[in-house]
Amino acid sequence: MFSFEIKYTCRASRARCGLMTTAHGVVETPVFMPVGTRGTVKAMTPEELRETGAQIILGNTFHLMLRPGSETIRDLGGLHKFMNWPGPILTDSGGFQVFSLAALRKVTDEGVTFQSPLDGSTCHLTPERAMEVQAHLGSDIAMVLDECLAHPATREQARRALERTLAWAVRCRRAADPRQAIFGIVQGGMFEDLRRESARRTVELDFVGYAIGGLSVGEDKPMMFEMLEASLAELPVSRPRYLMGVGTPRDIIRAIDAGVDMFDCVLPTRNARNGLAFTAEGAVKIKHAAYTRDPSPLSASCACPTCRNYSRAYLRHLYMANEILSARLLTYHNLYYFHALTAAARNAIRNGTWAGTVTPGLPLGPDVESEPADLL
Amino acid sequence: MFSFEIKYTCRASRARCGLMTTAHGVVETPVFMPVGTRGTVKAMTPEELRETGAQIILGNTFHLMLRPGSETIRDLGGLHKFMNWPGPILTDSGGFQVFSLAALRKVTDEGVTFQSPLDGSTCHLTPERAMEVQAHLGSDIAMVLDECLAHPATREQARRALERTLAWAVRCRRAADPRQAIFGIVQGGMFEDLRRESARRTVELDFVGYAIGGLSVGEDKPMMFEMLEASLAELPVSRPRYLMGVGTPRDIIRAIDAGVDMFDCVLPTRNARNGLAFTAEGAVKIKHAAYTRDPSPLSASCACPTCRNYSRAYLRHLYMANEILSARLLTYHNLYYFHALTAAARNAIRNGTWAGTVTPGLPLGPDVESEPADLL
Repeated sequence: MFSFEIKYTCRASRARCGLMTTAHGVVETPVFMPVGTRGTVKAMTPEELRETGAQIILGNTFHLMLRPGSETIRDLGGLHKFMNWPGPILTDSGGFQVFSLAALRKVTDEGVTFQSPLDGSTCHLTPERAMEVQAHLGSDIAMVLDECLAHPATREQARRALERTLAWAVRCRRAADPRQAIFGIVQGGMFEDLRRESARRTVELDFVGYAIGGLSVGEDKPMMFEMLEASLAELPVSRPRYLMGVGTPRDIIRAIDAGVDMFDCVLPTRNARNGLAFTAEGAVKIKHAAYTRDPSPLSASCACPTCRNYSRAYLRHLYMANEILSARLLTYHNLYYFHALTAAARNAIRNGTWAGTVTPGLPLGPDVESEPADLL
Repeated sequence: MFSFEIKYTCRASRARCGLMTTAHGVVETPVFMPVGTRGTVKAMTPEELRETGAQIILGNTFHLMLRPGSETIRDLGGLHKFMNWPGPILTDSGGFQVFSLAALRKVTDEGVTFQSPLDGSTCHLTPERAMEVQAHLGSDIAMVLDECLAHPATREQARRALERTLAWAVRCRRAADPRQAIFGIVQGGMFEDLRRESARRTVELDFVGYAIGGLSVGEDKPMMFEMLEASLAELPVSRPRYLMGVGTPRDIIRAIDAGVDMFDCVLPTRNARNGLAFTAEGAVKIKHAAYTRDPSPLSASCACPTCRNYSRAYLRHLYMANEILSARLLTYHNLYYFHALTAAARNAIRNGTWAGTVTPGLPLGPDVESEPADLL
């Protein structure tokens, strides 16, 4: 139960608009997926997510397998029912988190042995287990287990991770639940030829969609887009492309221009909790003393409930007082902004007005990009 | 712009139903007022408060005068506009918090000098300042400044606080903004005759409503209700009576039976954040391991969105993972429960079925009372 259809293609760029059909609904692409790490997109209800414009959300296999455990979620009817989100869900494979968050004990061709950050217990993640956990969660789209490189990495390290990721992709395909759509993942580090090779050989395995992994891990932007271009060059036009963990509004626009269909990132939600709002006029760090008595909304051009109902002065007060409502109102606004951004991109592509970069029709301010990255 | 009309009176008890008209709307009594300490009822939006059944909320003068400062809120259009709550607001005078939360420097007949818990600076609270701050906030109902006794207190201490509270009440009346309804406060410690005297002499000052202060401060329940009865005995039937800081569902029912019209308490909101839910079937401590795979709702008899949409297993998971959504969903449920409780009481009084205590028609379980008190 998965299909992808491209409805509009830009004449001047590789940007495209598509419809991705899943067991839990249809998704218009390009699409931004909010991150629901532990079975909740932090501070939001599912109803609010829908109101902000969310079509599909991401769940983290690593966190959910450790707590409450994927078997528990399976027994309770799967992740959709558990968290009361009736729409499509994509789950990652846990690979990225195992390599970035856990104390690693051993990485072999068989899989990864690591220490649970919750209780120190020894855990195993193999390609087969990653697929089993995702089957328990019952996500619409499951990702293969990949080996994620630390940055920077040598060519030899990148080559080894590429080969291991391909071998694991084969095992994931074999172990997959036929009810789930499985995406392959392109690795290859920061080496253009390895990126191309990884993409080519992953495509030979014939997945219904392809992700570009291992980017936005500390490399500079020109390098990131060079590696993205190399990866995309070998991917079939007809399949959805998912740029994992990216990114800033500017990155998203540029990647859409290069032909990417799907994005996920903690930027809007994490930055909201840290008091940073994305607006068409630029980033607003709400703790600034200048907002103490500012009666204006976060963004005069934004139609979200936070901007319709609350002043910067009130939002600053909530943030300074560490009130839960601060995280709620800023998260809502930031997700609304990211979804408005991708909706504007879709409209521009459909209407033939897509200009391949920031355009007046897109609610993207001049200094949004650099600010959030500093906070992460 | 304030009036109070009793619409129904119970034949078998002193319970009554009234309509309290304020500048920002009409309130049906008996009523429970959620506590919005810092310009927000923790974890809730104003829209959600309304959905849970809130008619009027409480704001804390002490917290708001320290941060963001009442002048700031005045300049931004008052507390209603600041926090986007269009309904009635009652503000306390700051007295209770000054005496319970601040490092006291000096209490004189003039007022109180204390140290700000935020930055250690020296602050003053006099009857005139308490009224000025509440005028800045623009609440519908303002409370006089009272001297709150620590418990236990000697008769001499209670006598002194009684006299000072009366003297301050006179000054508060003189300093009051004529657009606000001002309530007097009965003190008198745990001495029945002093309670009666305090009530009698406060009534001589002719306020539009009367609060009973200084209860639920550590005394046992029989003592609390004895002091409540003594205070109520001297208050005019025609004016609203407000029992400050009370209480458990059982306390509220019993006080309604004694003729109390208004209540406020942090129990439903604070306990929610601590993982305790009030239900008609009893208290639910959501962290209990027994709920790990429990697919049932918090309460099978509750119609709130938390109970309609989420399992105990999911709520436990959110609580264990320290997710913001845990505080949100439990707070919503608990407020819904408290408002349903008072709504059921109003209906019973109207319909002539009020039985003066817990009745089958009221959603109050057998063991709700003692549990929450332990957690505070």
